[in-house]
Amino acid sequence: MTRIFDAPDQFAATALDGFCRLYPDHVQRVNGGALRSAETRQQKVALVIGGGSGHYPAFLGFVGPGLADASVAGDVFASPSTQAVARIGRLAHRGMGVVLGFGNYAGDVLNFGAAAERLRAEGIDARILAVTDDVASADASEQEKRRGVAGDVVVFKVAGAAAERGDAMDEVMRLAAHANRRTASFGVAFSGCTLPGAREPLFTVPKGRIGVGLGIHGEPGVDEVDAMSASELAALLVDKLLPEAPAGWNRRACAILNGLGSTKYEELFVLWTHVEDRLKAAGITLVRPEAGELVTSLDMAGCSLTLGFLDDELEPLWLAPCDTPFLRRGAALASRAAAVVGNDPDPAPAVPPASDASRRSAACILALLRDTAALLVESEEELGRIDAFAGDGDHGQGMRRGSAAALEAAEAAASAGAGARTLLGTAADAWADRAGGTSGAIWGLLLRGWSDKLSDDEAVSDAMVAAGVREAVDRVMRLGRARPGDKTLVDALVPFADTLAGGIEAGRPLAEAWKQAAEAATRAAEATAPMTPRLGRARPLASRSVGHPDAGAVSLAMIARRLAERLPDAAR
Amino acid sequence: MTRIFDAPDQFAATALDGFCRLYPDHVQRVNGGALRSAETRQQKVALVIGGGSGHYPAFLGFVGPGLADASVAGDVFASPSTQAVARIGRLAHRGMGVVLGFGNYAGDVLNFGAAAERLRAEGIDARILAVTDDVASADASEQEKRRGVAGDVVVFKVAGAAAERGDAMDEVMRLAAHANRRTASFGVAFSGCTLPGAREPLFTVPKGRIGVGLGIHGEPGVDEVDAMSASELAALLVDKLLPEAPAGWNRRACAILNGLGSTKYEELFVLWTHVEDRLKAAGITLVRPEAGELVTSLDMAGCSLTLGFLDDELEPLWLAPCDTPFLRRGAALASRAAAVVGNDPDPAPAVPPASDASRRSAACILALLRDTAALLVESEEELGRIDAFAGDGDHGQGMRRGSAAALEAAEAAASAGAGARTLLGTAADAWADRAGGTSGAIWGLLLRGWSDKLSDDEAVSDAMVAAGVREAVDRVMRLGRARPGDKTLVDALVPFADTLAGGIEAGRPLAEAWKQAAEAATRAAEATAPMTPRLGRARPLASRSVGHPDAGAVSLAMIARRLAERLPDAAR
Repeated sequence: MTRIFDAPDQFAATALDGFCRLYPDHVQRVNGGALRSAETRQQKVALVIGGGSGHYPAFLGFVGPGLADASVAGDVFASPSTQAVARIGRLAHRGMGVVLGFGNYAGDVLNFGAAAERLRAEGIDARILAVTDDVASADASEQEKRRGVAGDVVVFKVAGAAAERGDAMDEVMRLAAHANRRTASFGVAFSGCTLPGAREPLFTVPKGRIGVGLGIHGEPGVDEVDAMSASELAALLVDKLLPEAPAGWNRRACAILNGLGSTKYEELFVLWTHVEDRLKAAGITLVRPEAGELVTSLDMAGCSLTLGFLDDELEPLWLAPCDTPFLRRGAALASRAAAVVGNDPDPAPAVPPASDASRRSAACILALLRDTAALLVESEEELGRIDAFAGDGDHGQGMRRGSAAALEAAEAAASAGAGARTLLGTAADAWADRAGGTSGAIWGLLLRGWSDKLSDDEAVSDAMVAAGVREAVDRVMRLGRARPGDKTLVDALVPFADTLAGGIEAGRPLAEAWKQAAEAATRAAEATAPMTPRLGRARPLASRSVGHPDAGAVSLAMIARRLAERLPDAAR
Repeated sequence: MTRIFDAPDQFAATALDGFCRLYPDHVQRVNGGALRSAETRQQKVALVIGGGSGHYPAFLGFVGPGLADASVAGDVFASPSTQAVARIGRLAHRGMGVVLGFGNYAGDVLNFGAAAERLRAEGIDARILAVTDDVASADASEQEKRRGVAGDVVVFKVAGAAAERGDAMDEVMRLAAHANRRTASFGVAFSGCTLPGAREPLFTVPKGRIGVGLGIHGEPGVDEVDAMSASELAALLVDKLLPEAPAGWNRRACAILNGLGSTKYEELFVLWTHVEDRLKAAGITLVRPEAGELVTSLDMAGCSLTLGFLDDELEPLWLAPCDTPFLRRGAALASRAAAVVGNDPDPAPAVPPASDASRRSAACILALLRDTAALLVESEEELGRIDAFAGDGDHGQGMRRGSAAALEAAEAAASAGAGARTLLGTAADAWADRAGGTSGAIWGLLLRGWSDKLSDDEAVSDAMVAAGVREAVDRVMRLGRARPGDKTLVDALVPFADTLAGGIEAGRPLAEAWKQAAEAATRAAEATAPMTPRLGRARPLASRSVGHPDAGAVSLAMIARRLAERLPDAAR
């Protein structure tokens, strides 16, 4: 279990601080992450990698010449915010675009995706690179649904080396996608990890048993088997991965035998002898394999094997020099110190001029945000309880924090004379940035999408509300990759939006359409209590609860109902 | 706990194998350890480091240009054998002598010390370097009694860098001793580790408590306190070490914040922020600090802080380039592949010619060795039970294995026509090499010392027996650094030797003198049941048992009694 911390909610930020102090030759600390401290030439594609904390050396330990240009560090096992990803992407940009690399988890998909949209809106060619190597989390026919585990290292190494040698964006992305398609991982768990300040591990494995098909965020395995010897374990891991080899493969592979935290070096070395024997017996030539802790899960006990099925393009990139705090290959790459970026907070966004009519609408939106924030203070505990069946139990906390931040930003924007579009957009970004995690990212997208259909010149019309809610749904589904029926907030959002927009388009008054929409959302949220277990975080936005509603859908319906009470006043 | 293994007794050897397969650019495997795979120039002092396995990256992970020339790996938490240390020292030797570096534990002191004697006898200038950095294990006034923990890395780094730049033996040893005097460590334990195949951890720490002053072999702390925050823990560690600073120190320090296995990177980074703040507040400038796993104890949870109080001599050596599997500094050091040494077993020693009289004496010694081996098969379980009160419970196993190996070697020597001196010396080396651990080393020294007073030309006289037992005592006490009263085998050996030699010198028949000596040894062994607790393995050869006799003293007395029964026949 995690034993060394001060305030648990400061754990990840303090760890980032300590890391940056220890490796000043490699990184400089910036808000929310770390940037190379060595100067990087202009006209190079930048690789920014990241995800939740608790996986060191992933991701901070891989920043440096030949690998990543920067890393974004979220809270423990929680995605960094959209704003943090965008900020660090902007800082790392050297004129040829930014690749945003992450493991394929709901929160990361949302936040890195939304950050890429923000950067593109600023004229930066930003692309997302979701690593999907965990064979336990989906079939080979649905590789895009697989989680990212230790294969991150293979894919990022390839992308980083391609960027370092000067490849253009399309080529870096082609090679990275190629590496991702040819990288597969499979792992086992012996015991779960314990979050800082928590009293119990996220899961346990019965004595004498092994969880098979582990995740790296405390998800239990997809199956359980009896404990076995090192040679049997090697066979289990290797035999699960070899069928993933692509046709026409030259039988040269890189490999990572990854320890998750408490499974130690000597154990990995023992296991490696059998892994190597078995791979060699299959006629495979190993290229610079690694055994050690590369993607951990706090102090979880367990390990995973990753194979990268190389070819003539990938092999030199895997072998190329790099110089990072954790991984170093070949001769040191010449470097001199980069300019110091500093840790100034992001400047407040400029408030564009707005018409009086739009400012009056902004005041209505502000009132609705105030109601929302008040509701989420009252409901924090209840939402946490609902979420605890399915996940970390932090949904109530995140919603409270996000709505409070949105309200604060909206109040500042209103004071600065913002119109409706700017006020809601500002609130959206603040929600996403301060709430963190998946729900923060979704609410940021939802409100940002909605705000994009409003205007700073005109009052908010019912038609704008209808167009906004449709845009919001579209954005959440596109970036969040969730569909109705996935037992997520989308299950409530879609009927809400359809009913609201449909009602408006049918000529019903906004307050009435909203009330009906809130009722539809409530019915849909209640229907999200899933009756069959689902796999960890494998499917974006999916919930693990059985027989309990999805907390995200519940909170959306709850907010919709509260605002339905206010709307007859606000619309006046 | 350790989960990945096949046969537990093969764990360390298989781990060594896996390590060497993974790092062919750094090391080549030799029997019992690893040698640099990069060519090393002639006329360089060689640094050979080692100790028990289970501490990776100590010691194998520190082999390479700029650091160690080779590493010897014993069983889990057990010293490598004298023969293995000598073998690898011989292979690493490049004409300027060999430094044998290890942490200050009983078994290592014995085996590395005995190996140094063997190498010196072959004309190699071999020196021993025992690291003594753990402030919890003895007062500053008795620094030579302290254990070696993560400070190993500081001392070996200094010695390795001095050797690499071409310093001569005396200068390398002077700098290493200087670094050792200025290096201090202190640690805490949160939970114990579990040996491969064991069902229970070596110790436990109650919930909400912390063991203070940990060891790295499953020794519990010397004290216990309530769990505390990261900043309080930093204060505890720093404040314990600062009083160790030497007078006139320039306030520049290197530091290692070391995780023991399950205490993970992010926790160490969090702790580091406070350690650094506190050291800086004390006006200390940090020079290239390290935080991570440098000297582990399987999956034990806990951490230690090491400070190296630098000066103008030590600082450049700490910072000098090195290129090892675990630690890499500065530009890569140019290297080409060394010749492959191969893994052939050590050749059987040549048997010098012997007189018939000496061969008849050899036959008597062989009969005594056969009795000893038979006795130790019968007594394995009993000795294990006695040892379990104080230590690992492996004393019976080690004695059985050692005496069996000694008998086998003696039989081969007898077949080859060996005289008494060669036969007993051969048996001694086989015992030390195959038993492993502390008792193996002691029995190797004891019998080797005894054999050195015998002859291959003459029959064994009573005078030779007396001189031999005195030489045996002398060698065990000198290399083992134990004194009577330390509650070790020496407590039984000294009265045995005094009674035996005294009786012979007083003209009593050998069988009678031996019988009285066996009785004296038995009384002394019974008196070794210590009444006060003693500190872990801090004092060489010390026992942790309270109210139980020392297993080493008991087994010595047991053997003496059994041979007393045989001697009237053998002497005929």
